[in-house]
Amino acid sequence: MPVERTRILLDTIKRLLRRGATVHLHKIVNKTHAADLAVVFQFLTLSEQEALFDLTDNIEQKAMLFSELEQETLLNLIEDMQAEKIAEILEQMPTDDVADLLGQLSDDRAKALLDLMTKEDSEEVEELLSYDEETAGGIMLPDFIALKEETTAKEAIEALQKEYVDVEMPFYLYVVDDHDYLVGIISLRQLVVVRPETKLKSIMATDVVSVRTDMDQEEVARIVARYNILAVPVVDENNKLVGIVTVDDVIDIIREEATEDILKMAGAGEGLIETQSLLKSTRIRLPWLLASWVGGVIAFLVISHFESSLNKFIYLAAFIPIIMGMGGNIGTQTSTIVVRGLATGQLDLKLIWQVVLKELAIGFLLGLVYGLLLGVFAHLRYDLWLLGVTVGLAVMSSMTIAATVGSLVPMVFARINIDPAVATGPFVTTSIDILSVFLYFQIATMLLNL
Amino acid sequence: MPVERTRILLDTIKRLLRRGATVHLHKIVNKTHAADLAVVFQFLTLSEQEALFDLTDNIEQKAMLFSELEQETLLNLIEDMQAEKIAEILEQMPTDDVADLLGQLSDDRAKALLDLMTKEDSEEVEELLSYDEETAGGIMLPDFIALKEETTAKEAIEALQKEYVDVEMPFYLYVVDDHDYLVGIISLRQLVVVRPETKLKSIMATDVVSVRTDMDQEEVARIVARYNILAVPVVDENNKLVGIVTVDDVIDIIREEATEDILKMAGAGEGLIETQSLLKSTRIRLPWLLASWVGGVIAFLVISHFESSLNKFIYLAAFIPIIMGMGGNIGTQTSTIVVRGLATGQLDLKLIWQVVLKELAIGFLLGLVYGLLLGVFAHLRYDLWLLGVTVGLAVMSSMTIAATVGSLVPMVFARINIDPAVATGPFVTTSIDILSVFLYFQIATMLLNL
Repeated sequence: MPVERTRILLDTIKRLLRRGATVHLHKIVNKTHAADLAVVFQFLTLSEQEALFDLTDNIEQKAMLFSELEQETLLNLIEDMQAEKIAEILEQMPTDDVADLLGQLSDDRAKALLDLMTKEDSEEVEELLSYDEETAGGIMLPDFIALKEETTAKEAIEALQKEYVDVEMPFYLYVVDDHDYLVGIISLRQLVVVRPETKLKSIMATDVVSVRTDMDQEEVARIVARYNILAVPVVDENNKLVGIVTVDDVIDIIREEATEDILKMAGAGEGLIETQSLLKSTRIRLPWLLASWVGGVIAFLVISHFESSLNKFIYLAAFIPIIMGMGGNIGTQTSTIVVRGLATGQLDLKLIWQVVLKELAIGFLLGLVYGLLLGVFAHLRYDLWLLGVTVGLAVMSSMTIAATVGSLVPMVFARINIDPAVATGPFVTTSIDILSVFLYFQIATMLLNL
Repeated sequence: MPVERTRILLDTIKRLLRRGATVHLHKIVNKTHAADLAVVFQFLTLSEQEALFDLTDNIEQKAMLFSELEQETLLNLIEDMQAEKIAEILEQMPTDDVADLLGQLSDDRAKALLDLMTKEDSEEVEELLSYDEETAGGIMLPDFIALKEETTAKEAIEALQKEYVDVEMPFYLYVVDDHDYLVGIISLRQLVVVRPETKLKSIMATDVVSVRTDMDQEEVARIVARYNILAVPVVDENNKLVGIVTVDDVIDIIREEATEDILKMAGAGEGLIETQSLLKSTRIRLPWLLASWVGGVIAFLVISHFESSLNKFIYLAAFIPIIMGMGGNIGTQTSTIVVRGLATGQLDLKLIWQVVLKELAIGFLLGLVYGLLLGVFAHLRYDLWLLGVTVGLAVMSSMTIAATVGSLVPMVFARINIDPAVATGPFVTTSIDILSVFLYFQIATMLLNL
């Protein structure tokens, strides 16, 4: 639903809620796609959400809405809901969504809900919960179509009609041997175009791309994206087929990871927090600003240290913003390119020195251009060529160092397995500020005291 | 293929190329998945790429490689290739990939290649080229399965076996009326589980999510992601079915758009440019740094304007970095949250004042905390409470204004249909720098001259 339509739906629902037009609302909540309702829910108060939810009488619609709602919205909504009612809805949801939700609840509450579910369902959920949340095991769906090699196409289609009615991704059929090891894959399309008596063994593809349960979800997403597949089978350490990760979950992962990287680099938390309370938003942003405050105090101490030079040439102060700004900006450019390149796999960690050397060269070239410009400007303004040389050299060295630090730091962090995005923001920006100011005053003191 | 395996493959290929081991290389290039080869190609020289490409004798493998290669790599590779050879490969590629490639070539060259293709293929490509590249029409695939309402399930499966052998996404069948208007959709799975004589009309879903040819690709991606579908049908202004957009293209769009947004916000171009030459990289980054240079000169002029205050209280200079830094950082946090929120649809443009007011409040709160901290620090250091009040107020006002500007600017840009990401980076950062410095010295001049 385009933004236009969301807005219209939201306005309509709000108006009907004010009027208490339950008959009309009843029709809307039961007929609108759950994905659209989920967007609308984000902009409603809790009591409005509850009113709408109570009007939904189709249990499947409730389950779809649960799957589609933003995590925080859902957690608020179920806070005061009866456990029996929740469990009834959970039974209708895909297992991976149930596991996601229960993973966010207190152990007691999760256990109470599991106890209310059928044994088969709760066991599947518990299996998923046993894997790390951000791995293939944590995001996989345990419902898939697995058939033996000797099965014929006709039997496979019959199985689709009887056993595998609720499978979410019925477009691939997996072929397993007697130990449930994954040995092949067939697309539903192949199945319908071969003779009914054909055995799966003779038409299956055997070079199957699969992932291990402990593979990081970002890596899983990269594989699905690279090979243009709709679902990737997940196997345990013995190559036993245990689940599949579908492309729609991969899309969510790719978006979330991109959002996470963007926000981390800006020191603004990990998830979009606009729907959160004022105080919570404030608290999330506090730490990075503290790093920047401490960095600012260090820059203050550096400048204080050079007070005598500053006293002699008071106009040195007026160039502080431009020298910090040029260093900071090229540093941000560089570290952003490197962090994103590492995230998308377009940049190889192995090429660390190649990348850093190239960035250093770019920083030097751009520093030369803008240093020269500023040097000429300063000389024209104060008719003092030594000042021109000072600010010119300061810009050049600040930009060269910023480009080097901006590329080196994220690559080194990635190498020692620290998330480059989270480390890069505060670390790079603050250290470049301090280095720029220090170099500037050091150069000024040396040159202007000649 | 995980990064580990890419590296091993790359090393192997490089070693074999040095040794001239063509027999071995021949086997590798013809057996490796084209998506993996495409990654390896990024790290090879042009002559190495040509050597490998010449060893590929399977035309379908060549076509898949063309589809998988990064655009720039592909353009370099085909630069000196014979038109006949290229056209032969294009015939084997999905139409949307051919259109993407031809759209990047000179009109003469594209026309020459189209003339060499079969009439049917070239017409399809030309149709795609007539749409704007970043719309549903520009990214759609014109190959889809369209059947009439009266068709039976058995006939539909027969059509799959005969007419629609090469369709890339055979999992949805679209139902059209006599005017080719889209009226329904059936999944392949439904088709195989109903009786053979069932008419499509009676099993098709009629509430089809479809998009118009002129819809922006980002919007198309949001729809596919929101409704968890594998392909979305594209219709023209008359609701005539003309193509489909598949989920694998949507994944590429989501990744590209995220990369684009991240890089634009950092003023580092639109695409990852690490594979580009040194001079090209430098040129792409030059303009934003110019904006930042001009901003720095304005900040210089602002400070010069307050020279007499600075002369009186020389230590004012030492606080410039922290006041700029705190404003700049909270501005980046805020604008990043807003730009990303708008991109993912989690933030509604309609709520502009709600968002800006909240950010203003956050900026004020955080400004209060860090302003107080700095004020106390300054007072303790210089035993001058008026200086403490000055820098404290400066941090507070700078952070409040930065949060306001950082949220208002991207929302206003989005409202007037200018890409918020591209406008936000240089505009927000530079104006916050200037405003912070101005407010600081204005407050200082007022308070310290008392």
